[in-house]
Amino acid sequence: MSNPGNNIEASRLLADLYRLREFGAYKTGVHRPTFSAEDIESRRWLAQRMREAGLDAHIDGIGNVLGRSPGSGRKLLLGSHLETQNHAGWLDGAMGVIYGLEVARTLGGGIDVAAWADEEGHYGSFLGSRSFIGELSDADVDASRNRYDAAPLRGALARCGLAGIPRDRCDPGRYVGYLEAHIEQADDLESRKLKLGVVTSIVGIRQFRIRVEGLQNHAGTTRMAIRRDAGLAAVKLAVAIDARFSKVCAERSVWTIGRMSLEPGALSVIPGGAEIGFQFRDADDLVLARFEATLEALVAETSAGPCTVALHNLSRSRPSVMDARFQEVIERAAEAHAPRLHQRMPSGAGHDAQILARVMPAGMLFVPSIGGVSHHWSEDTADEDIVLGCQVFTTAAADLLAA
Amino acid sequence: MSNPGNNIEASRLLADLYRLREFGAYKTGVHRPTFSAEDIESRRWLAQRMREAGLDAHIDGIGNVLGRSPGSGRKLLLGSHLETQNHAGWLDGAMGVIYGLEVARTLGGGIDVAAWADEEGHYGSFLGSRSFIGELSDADVDASRNRYDAAPLRGALARCGLAGIPRDRCDPGRYVGYLEAHIEQADDLESRKLKLGVVTSIVGIRQFRIRVEGLQNHAGTTRMAIRRDAGLAAVKLAVAIDARFSKVCAERSVWTIGRMSLEPGALSVIPGGAEIGFQFRDADDLVLARFEATLEALVAETSAGPCTVALHNLSRSRPSVMDARFQEVIERAAEAHAPRLHQRMPSGAGHDAQILARVMPAGMLFVPSIGGVSHHWSEDTADEDIVLGCQVFTTAAADLLAA
Repeated sequence: MSNPGNNIEASRLLADLYRLREFGAYKTGVHRPTFSAEDIESRRWLAQRMREAGLDAHIDGIGNVLGRSPGSGRKLLLGSHLETQNHAGWLDGAMGVIYGLEVARTLGGGIDVAAWADEEGHYGSFLGSRSFIGELSDADVDASRNRYDAAPLRGALARCGLAGIPRDRCDPGRYVGYLEAHIEQADDLESRKLKLGVVTSIVGIRQFRIRVEGLQNHAGTTRMAIRRDAGLAAVKLAVAIDARFSKVCAERSVWTIGRMSLEPGALSVIPGGAEIGFQFRDADDLVLARFEATLEALVAETSAGPCTVALHNLSRSRPSVMDARFQEVIERAAEAHAPRLHQRMPSGAGHDAQILARVMPAGMLFVPSIGGVSHHWSEDTADEDIVLGCQVFTTAAADLLAA
Repeated sequence: MSNPGNNIEASRLLADLYRLREFGAYKTGVHRPTFSAEDIESRRWLAQRMREAGLDAHIDGIGNVLGRSPGSGRKLLLGSHLETQNHAGWLDGAMGVIYGLEVARTLGGGIDVAAWADEEGHYGSFLGSRSFIGELSDADVDASRNRYDAAPLRGALARCGLAGIPRDRCDPGRYVGYLEAHIEQADDLESRKLKLGVVTSIVGIRQFRIRVEGLQNHAGTTRMAIRRDAGLAAVKLAVAIDARFSKVCAERSVWTIGRMSLEPGALSVIPGGAEIGFQFRDADDLVLARFEATLEALVAETSAGPCTVALHNLSRSRPSVMDARFQEVIERAAEAHAPRLHQRMPSGAGHDAQILARVMPAGMLFVPSIGGVSHHWSEDTADEDIVLGCQVFTTAAADLLAA
């Protein structure tokens, strides 16, 4: 193997990442929500950099930035996302996009680069990549609203000058496959003193809203024995979920209650209603099904008490297995650049690669996150790890293109 | 005993209650928050009704409506409050005030009537009655803000034309004592088919904010074993509080978690912080102290885990024992009007009587609440129970004045 990754220009790669960090700079991180002014500026800047790299670049009707290699022959598609979570890190998404750009510049052909819109879900769930593979309808776009202020997506697109512009649709025949690089967002690589992760699969996520109905009443005059306290039922259910899930989980399973509210939320009022926001993740569909059955059983048990409980599914994403050959190629590239400093591992976070994997072979490469910090402005990765990651990514891309 | 309660005019009593119900009418209840336009209108109407009953009436600088009997000799002070909880009942507070007015009209002298401002705590805690007994400083007034929109109390007073008006201060020597009638706000009388409750004491309440600090992180990439989930620690603590309190409680103790929030409150983010709003009540100071020690121990136990917990006391009110002679007089009046249809009982809710009891003998009478409903627009009491209660109240007042 010739290790074409050795030909990347580290200073150019880092300079582009530093430049991108200025759009919405916040402390040492970035605040660049989807379709904010800074986000759109960064997309325009990227399209220009793509053109300078010899790609045909444009922004499509959902905000995807697509840079196409003009030559003939099948292409490899590289990408990630540009927008960030609120007050979050500078590399989450951005690094994978600039890796793609650097690979295109280094290999000189055969590489398409994409920045998928709204991977971070300010308006929906993987809007950009789903649009690209044809799994986002116009009705979906109509219905999408900002998760913080409920502003319609259509209005945001119009404000960004994207109303009426067609949405690009993937031609799977054009592509050998899809490759994405990303920060790990955890400390597994760092804690094992490894530099590279070859992603085996992306976990499936199931999300639920659990609604508890009791009877609102006076907290002073209502005897304990006759209460139907929705808050108490909710916290008992939450504790039971955690205890029971820890008995039926797999090694890498995670489950989280991220939201809880009691109604009306006054000190002197027994809660008449309560709501729990719950999700769980695993790379194995069987584990996900076991979790959901466990959750249903616990909800039924709680409903046998003084309050009634209803379970509403919000989303179910399936685990996405990365292509076996892509894993091998990435692993070989990692071994070539950093012998024994890599491992195979699942991704606990969702990525656009899980969407693209529905229509073409896909693979992912992870680089270490310092301290495992993610979705926080202090997220960071050492410059030398960024450069090493891009070398491995480039070698893997060249290998896949050559095959 | 001559039972002067037989001389009340039931139609006049009910007509005044029906008229009062129109200020801020909401379904079959009332929405009349402290210092809303409807609230001030109702205070002006009451002052006018007091004047028609031969009392010297005015509204003081905190919004108390005070009607003084012009004659010489010691007086009995009767009162309750006019404002309501949001979208709440028509009798909570209003009934006790109109009882006072009806007693003044029936007995023709010796009765002062008060409507204490903000018993329901829109701006503070018993502002009106505390002001009257001299336990509310100008600095307290300066610092008070609306609990919903944080609007300053001073601004509300100015808007109601009360800025610069002096606040009345109690002369305890003027009074034989204080008597208050109120709906029970529970179903104890109804379930025992009783018509009248002689209040023995008003519970003490202690309120706390429990703050849990963990570490916010990605809900997909952070392994369960290394999490410091503030939400999970909070729900476990909540369940432990309920379990432990039920072991150390007295017969009528109550405890309530009315508020809980997780931060930042997103499905995909492990909560880094959590907050619990907690209160407990009992008529016995020793039980309250035992509860607080139990709470402190549980907080310390939780802090030994992955998250730290801090306990902030918000308020501590002491149980207030009603005057023994007042209890006897009320019980005698109840027996005279409704033989064997009364009981002695504590009040689980707070009332202005607990404030007045600090400077003079105080007593309270309860009438039944249909279905025990309270702080809801559907709260109600049968007209005949309202009339019977006023008869008993009048007889008791006459007895106390005569002594």
